Amino acid sequence: MQAIAFPHQLALDDLSLVDRPVPSPGPHEVVVRILAVSLNYRDLVIARGRYGAYPLPFTPGSDAAGAVAQVGPGVTRAAVGDRVCLHYVPDWIDGPPRAEVAARRLGGTAPGVLATYVCIDERAVVRAPAHLTAIEASTLPIAGVTAWQALIADGGLRPGDTVAVSGTGGVSLFVVQVARLAGARAIVVGRDPVRLARVAAMGAIAIAAEGDWAARVRDASAGGVDLFVDVVGGDALARSIAATRVGGTVAAVGFVTGTAATVDLLEMIRRTVTVRAASGGSRASFEALVRALEVADVHPVVDRVFGFSAAEVRAAYAHLADGRPFGKIVIDLAPGLGGAS
Amino acid sequence: MQAIAFPHQLALDDLSLVDRPVPSPGPHEVVVRILAVSLNYRDLVIARGRYGAYPLPFTPGSDAAGAVAQVGPGVTRAAVGDRVCLHYVPDWIDGPPRAEVAARRLGGTAPGVLATYVCIDERAVVRAPAHLTAIEASTLPIAGVTAWQALIADGGLRPGDTVAVSGTGGVSLFVVQVARLAGARAIVVGRDPVRLARVAAMGAIAIAAEGDWAARVRDASAGGVDLFVDVVGGDALARSIAATRVGGTVAAVGFVTGTAATVDLLEMIRRTVTVRAASGGSRASFEALVRALEVADVHPVVDRVFGFSAAEVRAAYAHLADGRPFGKIVIDLAPGLGGAS
Amino acid sequence: MQAIAFPHQLALDDLSLVDRPVPSPGPHEVVVRILAVSLNYRDLVIARGRYGAYPLPFTPGSDAAGAVAQVGPGVTRAAVGDRVCLHYVPDWIDGPPRAEVAARRLGGTAPGVLATYVCIDERAVVRAPAHLTAIEASTLPIAGVTAWQALIADGGLRPGDTVAVSGTGGVSLFVVQVARLAGARAIVVGRDPVRLARVAAMGAIAIAAEGDWAARVRDASAGGVDLFVDVVGGDALARSIAATRVGGTVAAVGFVTGTAATVDLLEMIRRTVTVRAASGGSRASFEALVRALEVADVHPVVDRVFGFSAAEVRAAYAHLADGRPFGKIVIDLAPGLGGAS
Amino acid sequence: MQAIAFPHQLALDDLSLVDRPVPSPGPHEVVVRILAVSLNYRDLVIARGRYGAYPLPFTPGSDAAGAVAQVGPGVTRAAVGDRVCLHYVPDWIDGPPRAEVAARRLGGTAPGVLATYVCIDERAVVRAPAHLTAIEASTLPIAGVTAWQALIADGGLRPGDTVAVSGTGGVSLFVVQVARLAGARAIVVGRDPVRLARVAAMGAIAIAAEGDWAARVRDASAGGVDLFVDVVGGDALARSIAATRVGGTVAAVGFVTGTAATVDLLEMIRRTVTVRAASGGSRASFEALVRALEVADVHPVVDRVFGFSAAEVRAAYAHLADGRPFGKIVIDLAPGLGGAS
Repeated sequence: MQAIAFPHQLALDDLSLVDRPVPSPGPHEVVVRILAVSLNYRDLVIARGRYGAYPLPFTPGSDAAGAVAQVGPGVTRAAVGDRVCLHYVPDWIDGPPRAEVAARRLGGTAPGVLATYVCIDERAVVRAPAHLTAIEASTLPIAGVTAWQALIADGGLRPGDTVAVSGTGGVSLFVVQVARLAGARAIVVGRDPVRLARVAAMGAIAIAAEGDWAARVRDASAGGVDLFVDVVGGDALARSIAATRVGGTVAAVGFVTGTAATVDLLEMIRRTVTVRAASGGSRASFEALVRALEVADVHPVVDRVFGFSAAEVRAAYAHLADGRPFGKIVIDLAPGLGGAS
Repeated sequence: MQAIAFPHQLALDDLSLVDRPVPSPGPHEVVVRILAVSLNYRDLVIARGRYGAYPLPFTPGSDAAGAVAQVGPGVTRAAVGDRVCLHYVPDWIDGPPRAEVAARRLGGTAPGVLATYVCIDERAVVRAPAHLTAIEASTLPIAGVTAWQALIADGGLRPGDTVAVSGTGGVSLFVVQVARLAGARAIVVGRDPVRLARVAAMGAIAIAAEGDWAARVRDASAGGVDLFVDVVGGDALARSIAATRVGGTVAAVGFVTGTAATVDLLEMIRRTVTVRAASGGSRASFEALVRALEVADVHPVVDRVFGFSAAEVRAAYAHLADGRPFGKIVIDLAPGLGGAS
Repeated sequence: MQAIAFPHQLALDDLSLVDRPVPSPGPHEVVVRILAVSLNYRDLVIARGRYGAYPLPFTPGSDAAGAVAQVGPGVTRAAVGDRVCLHYVPDWIDGPPRAEVAARRLGGTAPGVLATYVCIDERAVVRAPAHLTAIEASTLPIAGVTAWQALIADGGLRPGDTVAVSGTGGVSLFVVQVARLAGARAIVVGRDPVRLARVAAMGAIAIAAEGDWAARVRDASAGGVDLFVDVVGGDALARSIAATRVGGTVAAVGFVTGTAATVDLLEMIRRTVTVRAASGGSRASFEALVRALEVADVHPVVDRVFGFSAAEVRAAYAHLADGRPFGKIVIDLAPGLGGAS
Repeated sequence: MQAIAFPHQLALDDLSLVDRPVPSPGPHEVVVRILAVSLNYRDLVIARGRYGAYPLPFTPGSDAAGAVAQVGPGVTRAAVGDRVCLHYVPDWIDGPPRAEVAARRLGGTAPGVLATYVCIDERAVVRAPAHLTAIEASTLPIAGVTAWQALIADGGLRPGDTVAVSGTGGVSLFVVQVARLAGARAIVVGRDPVRLARVAAMGAIAIAAEGDWAARVRDASAGGVDLFVDVVGGDALARSIAATRVGGTVAAVGFVTGTAATVDLLEMIRRTVTVRAASGGSRASFEALVRALEVADVHPVVDRVFGFSAAEVRAAYAHLADGRPFGKIVIDLAPGLGGAS
C-alpha cells in the first residue's frame, strides 16, 4: 500500500509518497480501503509545523471515505464491502466532549488517513450516506460534523432561526446547507462577489464583508442572528459577537486570520452572548448528519479534486493555502472508484 | 358586535348568535377585530359539556386571527392595524408549563374568541405570518403550536429524525408540515386511502392503520420512530409506544377514541420510552412557529370554511364531529377580509 | 472459581453453586475479582422465568463491585488492584439510550456477575467511590444509577425542587439520598410507620400511603411535586401522575404491583405531565454518581448481607421477595474483604 | 418619601437625598415599601458615568427587598404586607434572554430602587425567602440570581461537579453557596489569606491567586473545573479558560479589572471551552433560587450595612470601590425593620 508521509520534518517540501505493508486487523478492528480524503485548514497548519509536534514519519489527513476491506475477530459494526467514513475523533462516541474522548484525533494525535489502507477500531467507522460518492463523503468528518455540532447538536438550531457564517470554505458551505435543510435562514458574509452569488444561489443571504458588516447582518436578522459560526477568528470575533442577537451564540470553529481574539466583556454581557469553541463532534452527531443529508438529498460542495501523488497532494495543500476554495478540496485515491456512489 | 354563545347550557342545540357592545381596551389591552376562528376537537368536547363546567352564557372558540382595532394606554407590543393571532394560553409567555401560566385558556377557563371583537392583554397577541390569510392564520394557536411544541420545543426534533402521527386532522397535518420543514421524515398512519394519498403528496410516508401497523412503522424507520405524536389516545397509545424506538418519545396530544389508556410498563421500561402529554405551547413557541412557516413558505391546510351564523357554526361543529376533516375547519367572520393576506 | 447458576431452568429451586475455570482477559478486557453483588427486583423476576428466556446454564446478577485481578493487552482504563464497579449496561457509555447500546445488560442479555471472577470489556468498569466498601459499592449499578438517571441526567433536578418516591427499597432510598445531596426536598410515600420514621431521619418528608395520598403529596409540595419516581407501577401510576405538578414528570422505573397501568389522558394533558420510563443509565451517569457520592460523603443503605452459597443466595432472593427490605440486599463473595473500603 | 438621586450628573459627589411624593399604584401595579437595598459593582460604574448615559435626575439601585404597601386594581400576584424582592430585569419572566425582555433593568434603563417607596408592575415582585431578613433578601436580585443563572439555569451544574470562582465579593460568595447546596465542590481563587480562610470555612477549596494558579486549579479538579465563574474579566479571562476542563464553561459575569479580554482561540478550540456572558436572570430563576435557599437554610453573606443618608450611601459606594468586601454591602432604609425576618 501507499501513504503520504512527512519522513523528516513537518514541512510541505518534505511531503512524500511512501510504500508500506497493508495492515491486518486485530480484534474489533477493520481495515478500510481509503478511496478519498478531504483536506482541512488544520492539515495546513499541521503541515507547517505550527499545530504541534508529532512523531516522524508523520502521515497527515483526518477526513476519509472508503470501503471496508477486512474485518478482525469479533467485529459486529461493519462488514467487508461496507461504504464508510472514518470518524475524526475516534473515541468520542456520544454525549458532550471530555478530555478522555477528545484527545485522539486522526491525522494529529492519532495516525493520519492519507493512505490506501487504514486499520482502525470498528467503533470509529460510520456508514457513508447512500447517495454520496466517496469523494463527497470524504468531506464530512471534520467540516460537515463541525457544522452539525455547531448548529444542531450544540446549537439547538430551530426552524425559522437565522445563522450567519463568514467565508465560503468547506465548513461555511456546510453551515449554509445544514441551516437550510433544518428550515433556518443562512447569511454568508464574504468578500468575493462571485462566491457570494454562488451562496445566494444555494439559498443564503449574501452580505459583503465591507465597512460595518455586523450592522448589516443585524438589519437582515431583526436585531442579530441566533447563531454566528465564526471560521475566521482574530479581530473578526468581536464583529461576529456584534452581529449576534441578545442571548445568541457565536460558534468559534476557526482561526484563519489569527488565534488571538480580543472581545469587549461589557458588550458581551450586555448582549448576553455565548462564545462556544468547537472542532468536530461525536460519532452520534456524525451518524445524525448522515441521516439528515440523506433525507434532504443534499450533496456537499467539492471545490476541486486532486490525485494521489506527492506532487498532486502538495498542489492540493497549496490550493488550500492560496486559492480561497469554494467548498472542499479532495484527494482521490482510487480514480474511477472515488467518484462512484 | 356579535358573538357566538351558549346562553343556557353547554349543548350544540343551545348555540346562538348574540349581540354585545364592542369592548374598550384598558391599560395594556388591545381590542382585536376577529376575522377568522378555527375549531378544535376540544371545542367539540366543551360544547357537549364533557370537558368541564363553565359559567353561562359561554362563548366558545380558542383559535383566532384578526387585526388590532384599538389599543389601550401604555400598549407597546401592538399598533392599530397589526395583523395578529391570539395566544390560546395567554399567560404562558416562555419557558416550560407551570400551573400559574397554564390555567387560563381561551374558550374555556378564559373567554372565547368566536366574536367580532375581543379585548385582550397586549401580551397575548402574536404577529400573524406575513404570507398567510387570516383564515390560514386562525389555524395556528392550538393545532400549529401543539405540533411545534411536541416536535420542536419539547421534542428537540433534529433533521434526519423520523416522526409518526395518526390521522389527518388539523394537528396531524401540522405535524407533517413542521417535520418536513425541519428536515425530518414524517409517517402518517391512517385508514382512508384517499387521505393517505394526499399526505403522501405532502411528503409523508403513508401507512395503513390495519393489522400490526406498529410493526410496519418500525420497519419504515429502522426500528422505531424518534417521536410519535398520538392524537388518538385510548387503546392506540400502547401501539404508538410499540412503534417508537428505544429512547424515543410519544407526545400524547389527543384522545379522540378515549381518555383511558392502558400501557405495559415492562415494555415501556425495556424500550425506555417517554410519554409526554401536551396541549398548546408558550407564546415564544408560537412566535417561533410563525418565523418557521415564513422561512419555509408553508401554508396550513384548511379543510372547509364556514360562515358566521348560528346555523353555519353548528354545521362546522357537526362537520368536525362527523366529517373526519383533512386539515382545519374555519369560521370566516368577515367574508372578503378573512381570505386576504 | 465459583459461580451461581441456574443449570436446568429459571426457577429458584434450581439455583446452584458451580465450579468454573478462572477466565483470561483478551485484548482490551479485564478480569475482576468480584467482592460483592447486590440484588434487584429484576433478578427476582428473571429467576422466576417471567422476564424472558435466557440460554442455560444461566448466571444471574447485574450489580457487582470488586478489584481488577488481571488486565488484557492494550488495556488503558484500569490497572490490577483498582477497586471498580461493573457497569450494568456495558455498551451505554454516554448520551441518551439507543437500541444498539441498551440491548446488552449484565445478568440478562449479557452474562451475570454472581461469580468470583468476571471477564469484561475494560470500558464496562467504573472506578468505585473511594469512601465506600465493596458491599456498599455493589449497590450502585442499577439502583443508584437508576436514581441518578431519573433525577439528574434525565430529570434535570434543581436545588429547591421536590421529588417524591414510593416505598423504601433500594431505588427509593437512593432517590432520597440523591435528592437531598442535590439540594432538593424528598417525599416518601409508604405503608410502614417504622420505615417512614427511618426515611424521615434521612431528611425526607414521610407520607402514609393511605386514602388519597396523592392529595397529601400535593399539599406538601405547593400543588404537586416536580418529579415523582414511581417504583410500584400498576394502579399506582395514575396516583403518581395526580401527585405531580403541572409540567412535572413521573419517572416510571418499576412495576412491583403490576406491569399494566391505566392512565387518564385528559388528566395527563391538563396537567401536562410526562411519564418517562427508565432503567439504569449511561456509564457517564455512573461516573457522575460516584463523584457526587464522594463529594457529599453519602453511603448507600444496605438492608442485609448474605453469604456466597446456594442456600444463602436463595435466602437473599426470598428476603427480596417477602421481606420488604429497607435498602439493598447484598451477597458478600469475600467475607473480610467486601466490607473494607 | 425619600430617594437617593443624582440631580445634575452621574458622579458620586452629586449623590443626594431628595423628597418625592409617595407613588400610587395603577392597574396591575404594586407599591413596595423598600426596607433594604444592596449595592453591586454595576452601581459603582454607573455612578461614575462609565456605564452609559441616563436621564437626570437619576435614582440608582437595582437590588431591593421590602413589603407590599399598596396594590392597584387587578393585582393577583401580591397582597399588602407580602415580603418581597424586586426583580432586577422586570420583563424577563421565564425562558432564555431576548432583547425585548432584557432591555429594562432597575437602576439603569428602568428607575432605581434606592427610595422608601417604589411603584412597579406586579409581575416584577418575587416572594422573599421566609428565613431571611430584608437586609439579607436585598442581596439576591443581581448577585444571587447571577450565580444561580450561571451555575444552575444556564450551567446545568450537577452534584459532584466542581465550580471555581475568583474573589470573595457578593457574586463570588453566592457561587460558593449555590455550588455547595447543589452538591458540587467550590474552588475560590483569591489574594487575601484571611478571606481565603473564611471561604474555606464555608466549604470551599481556597487557592492563592499567585503564579500559575490556573495549573493549581486544574490539579485540584482532575484536569480542570466544570465551570469557572469569572467576575474579574480583563487578562484573567484567559487564565479562567486555562483552568477549565475540556468541554467546560466559563461564565463571564464581571469585568472588575477591565472590559477588554484577549483569548487564544486555538487553545479554546482544543479545550472545547464555552464562554458564556451573563448578568442577572429570569424571574423563574429568581423564584427557584428562593426555594433552594429555603430548603438548604442558607443565608447570604452581608459584609457591612450602611444607613439611608447621602453621607452613608456615599460611604457605601466608597467601601465598594476600595474595601474589597467579603460579601454584600447593604443600605438599611428602615432601621429596626430591615433586619427582621
